Amino acid sequence: MPVTSQPQQIIALVVRQNTPGIEEPVGRLTEFLAASGYRVVYETDTAAHLGTDGIESMTVAEIGEQASYAVVMGGDGTMLGIARQLAQYDIPLIGINSGRLGFITDIPIDRMVPALGEILQGQAKTEERTLLEARVVREGQQIFCAVAFNDVVVARGAGAGMVELKLTVDGEFMYNQRADGLIVSTPTGSTAYALSAGGPLLHPRVQGIVLVPIAPHALSNRPIVVPESSEIVVELVAGRDISVNFDMQTFTSAQLGDHIVISRSPHTITFLHPRDWSYYHTLREKLHWNEYPTNEGKLT
Amino acid sequence: MPVTSQPQQIIALVVRQNTPGIEEPVGRLTEFLAASGYRVVYETDTAAHLGTDGIESMTVAEIGEQASYAVVMGGDGTMLGIARQLAQYDIPLIGINSGRLGFITDIPIDRMVPALGEILQGQAKTEERTLLEARVVREGQQIFCAVAFNDVVVARGAGAGMVELKLTVDGEFMYNQRADGLIVSTPTGSTAYALSAGGPLLHPRVQGIVLVPIAPHALSNRPIVVPESSEIVVELVAGRDISVNFDMQTFTSAQLGDHIVISRSPHTITFLHPRDWSYYHTLREKLHWNEYPTNEGKLT
Amino acid sequence: MPVTSQPQQIIALVVRQNTPGIEEPVGRLTEFLAASGYRVVYETDTAAHLGTDGIESMTVAEIGEQASYAVVMGGDGTMLGIARQLAQYDIPLIGINSGRLGFITDIPIDRMVPALGEILQGQAKTEERTLLEARVVREGQQIFCAVAFNDVVVARGAGAGMVELKLTVDGEFMYNQRADGLIVSTPTGSTAYALSAGGPLLHPRVQGIVLVPIAPHALSNRPIVVPESSEIVVELVAGRDISVNFDMQTFTSAQLGDHIVISRSPHTITFLHPRDWSYYHTLREKLHWNEYPTNEGKLT
Amino acid sequence: MPVTSQPQQIIALVVRQNTPGIEEPVGRLTEFLAASGYRVVYETDTAAHLGTDGIESMTVAEIGEQASYAVVMGGDGTMLGIARQLAQYDIPLIGINSGRLGFITDIPIDRMVPALGEILQGQAKTEERTLLEARVVREGQQIFCAVAFNDVVVARGAGAGMVELKLTVDGEFMYNQRADGLIVSTPTGSTAYALSAGGPLLHPRVQGIVLVPIAPHALSNRPIVVPESSEIVVELVAGRDISVNFDMQTFTSAQLGDHIVISRSPHTITFLHPRDWSYYHTLREKLHWNEYPTNEGKLT
Repeated sequence: MPVTSQPQQIIALVVRQNTPGIEEPVGRLTEFLAASGYRVVYETDTAAHLGTDGIESMTVAEIGEQASYAVVMGGDGTMLGIARQLAQYDIPLIGINSGRLGFITDIPIDRMVPALGEILQGQAKTEERTLLEARVVREGQQIFCAVAFNDVVVARGAGAGMVELKLTVDGEFMYNQRADGLIVSTPTGSTAYALSAGGPLLHPRVQGIVLVPIAPHALSNRPIVVPESSEIVVELVAGRDISVNFDMQTFTSAQLGDHIVISRSPHTITFLHPRDWSYYHTLREKLHWNEYPTNEGKLT
Repeated sequence: MPVTSQPQQIIALVVRQNTPGIEEPVGRLTEFLAASGYRVVYETDTAAHLGTDGIESMTVAEIGEQASYAVVMGGDGTMLGIARQLAQYDIPLIGINSGRLGFITDIPIDRMVPALGEILQGQAKTEERTLLEARVVREGQQIFCAVAFNDVVVARGAGAGMVELKLTVDGEFMYNQRADGLIVSTPTGSTAYALSAGGPLLHPRVQGIVLVPIAPHALSNRPIVVPESSEIVVELVAGRDISVNFDMQTFTSAQLGDHIVISRSPHTITFLHPRDWSYYHTLREKLHWNEYPTNEGKLT
Repeated sequence: MPVTSQPQQIIALVVRQNTPGIEEPVGRLTEFLAASGYRVVYETDTAAHLGTDGIESMTVAEIGEQASYAVVMGGDGTMLGIARQLAQYDIPLIGINSGRLGFITDIPIDRMVPALGEILQGQAKTEERTLLEARVVREGQQIFCAVAFNDVVVARGAGAGMVELKLTVDGEFMYNQRADGLIVSTPTGSTAYALSAGGPLLHPRVQGIVLVPIAPHALSNRPIVVPESSEIVVELVAGRDISVNFDMQTFTSAQLGDHIVISRSPHTITFLHPRDWSYYHTLREKLHWNEYPTNEGKLT
Repeated sequence: MPVTSQPQQIIALVVRQNTPGIEEPVGRLTEFLAASGYRVVYETDTAAHLGTDGIESMTVAEIGEQASYAVVMGGDGTMLGIARQLAQYDIPLIGINSGRLGFITDIPIDRMVPALGEILQGQAKTEERTLLEARVVREGQQIFCAVAFNDVVVARGAGAGMVELKLTVDGEFMYNQRADGLIVSTPTGSTAYALSAGGPLLHPRVQGIVLVPIAPHALSNRPIVVPESSEIVVELVAGRDISVNFDMQTFTSAQLGDHIVISRSPHTITFLHPRDWSYYHTLREKLHWNEYPTNEGKLT
């Protein structure tokens, strides 16, 4: 709990738009945090859609520089969007899910007050997550650069037959691959698009990057996990209408001959979880691991 | 509804053992069927574990020869066991699930009376299911023969590295395969073991047999659906401690050099379903197709 | 061999463009067919790029109406393109591969003369292949219709997160699916895109249509084979920039609310193969089934 | 190169049995090493099957304690067997493949002399590989313990329907799983059995352990990579005839209620490779990544 002689700590709230009924819990949370001695601010967009009602607003950059914590209320998509913007700052994030349990928005609204109380009193589980940084290089010039929290996806357009990609890892040729595309994913992203495309789950503490082909022509192709320290270069060899996506939120188009250079970002993101948070519990809940057909049902 | 001047139609009941509380619904069903004019009999094992309480009992063979319908109350395993025994007779089967919804025991106990009423009045959806017949041939001599409703599985023992199988289909060489084993499955079995091993679903009306390798060494190996009319010969080329399983209920051991000859059984099994029965509904319920992680949850 | 008092039988040649050195085998084939008593014609585009050199040319429609056989020289893509156009006519197709062995262009150039001789003398293996017909219906009006020999693919654009599709089969609701897209494939197409996306192989004589999701959100989703007689309706529930592809050669864009109605085409395609042609042999060659890592290599 | 005033360095040779024609290259290698100033010894079994011909023999333990290097000539299976025995010693291993290229026997016989020369002169690529240690605990007592270089596999017998396993990782419940079994694999083992069962490839430098279910009942089950530091406890909940395999070379049977406790071994194995060795090259060669069906072949 902040001591009064010190400058008041700032907590920023980021709230998903278009969420009917969100005002009430936001209000409740704001009151609780203020009563706990924090200076509560709303991120600019949040302020714009919720109305400030006397609460200060701050840009993302100001939050990154001045706030002690950012509390995100929404779904994993909301967290994803703000986490990428806050990655360059050293601010821990706390996720409250406004609907179903999320992988990274893990505190249910009806438990947010005790959970936040616990976390802010220093009883949090701290967890650091890796980001990727990808640069698109054309004829030796960097033409685009962005970070991804989940994945960098290189893929063909809907009307094109396939892309052919040449992969080089730490200067060693890995393979030429024909496919719909390639997903380069962090452990965080391993529960997202990479999973749909057949990739493995990676525990957040595994220091690896997983490459998952989307509908590869070669039947022998398999997802591969490479060390987190790897520099992955994807060269566009064939295909049309190719795009490079970052977390499926930002994208740029690319041309044959372009190199996409992907490596670990120097930044990481820190999540704070309640003490009883369990990664495996979240997996079970989200992936329905318990709901297998019963023995009698499977006829075996 | 049977007319009194004709001989009374027989309905046989087959009930899963060790099902606490099953007596009450069995009693209710027996009364309903008797009241509807049928002569109700219990299959011998059912009579032994439930007590007959004045009800006649019949062997499976007698049921096959004399009864008009067999009603099976239990899970899919119960149905599987009795269906294989009744396959050579021409008797339709009706499945009531005593627990969770089954793929082939599709009538919930609490709907059994109206559902059976409907079916016996001729308003059933009739569905015919294929069986496989497999013969183990050693040095030209048939040493074992059995039918399977789900699948014939050729697999290595737990302590052995792999089996190598040579497959010939209708006299044409298909492939040599090294794997833990091979599942040869009917459409019915496509929701059972074959599905766990990565096989596709086959609608019961698709006239095909699916071959699904278990953990194949060749990464390019894939499940293949061949016409129902195919004769599949599996030759044991290498491996130790090899067994041939039928529906995972009956099995025999096999030796190197043995040929397992698998083809469609001349018999089929007829299921009667209520009019509103839907195969796709059952799939959804059993496989939890609807319970995908929500969009916000998947971070995409 | 045609008898002289009857009108001379026509054989049409369709040859892939941009194939260096193709003139020589085309010339050799033309001579052989003429010497065998046939009237050889070139399909219009073939005539345009090869030069006719005294050989008649015909449009695809004329070929369909007048020719007894069409011989296609190229790869499977060439065959695919012409087969879709000739589907409505009753003309058998013979495929010669100008490069690597194809699934449906199965006669190597260096064996084309004896193979064609054998086939034209009536010693062919005849094989009939199914096509799909898909209609895009918007607000009750059909706005597009085409046939597919391999597959009909409904997929999102590169920049869009996913499509949500509602599937109805023969009037029964099957499932709602969120994915990159859905492949609806014939047995012929089961060795093409559907295979890359994780679908099973279907022998050409299996009367089924296989539905293969591309990167489905629901982990429990699996490819499913439905009877060939099924009418499959795909309704576009969510997503952006959606397209419907036919054999990845023709496509149209679609909107939310559109229904894509897919069913077996009334037309089929007939292939003629040499007597010793084997589907399983082609699979082995194309899919490299034999080239598994050896036992010592796999460390098991 | 050893200096004469120092004690002569010992190099041990371990050679696969039953390899026709192996004597000649073994002799050549022995001469080369002796000429390079090393004292060459044969491992006891190798000496027994090759004949010593004046060469000293040593037990595996003596080699572990006294030799500077062990050179293994054979396949990956040979390397696997000896590596597990030498794991507790601090001796680097060099692998020469007597047949096809191996994942861990990477020097072809015809390049062995220059490659070994290079390596022994200190120009090797040094690579450290992790091992697993698994203890079977029954009623609180450890009844078996062994190390695995590839994998620890818990699996049902051929005649049993499934096993149910309860997994706990670092004291947190992960899931209950019904399956044929579970593969717990090192990165080295990720190219072996785990790959056949659908697991991802793990680069040897990724500090992770991958859990791959074999034919899991739950369709939502997926391979998961956990940190190398994890303690994995597998409890046997249901099933019959269950065995625990180590690298498919050693196994023990287990009972319901047993706990199998798996963690990283304190020992590692060091491989020495020639400078131009490439892990990705080996993958391409072994998995046939380049041999995808060509574009024309795939009909897309």
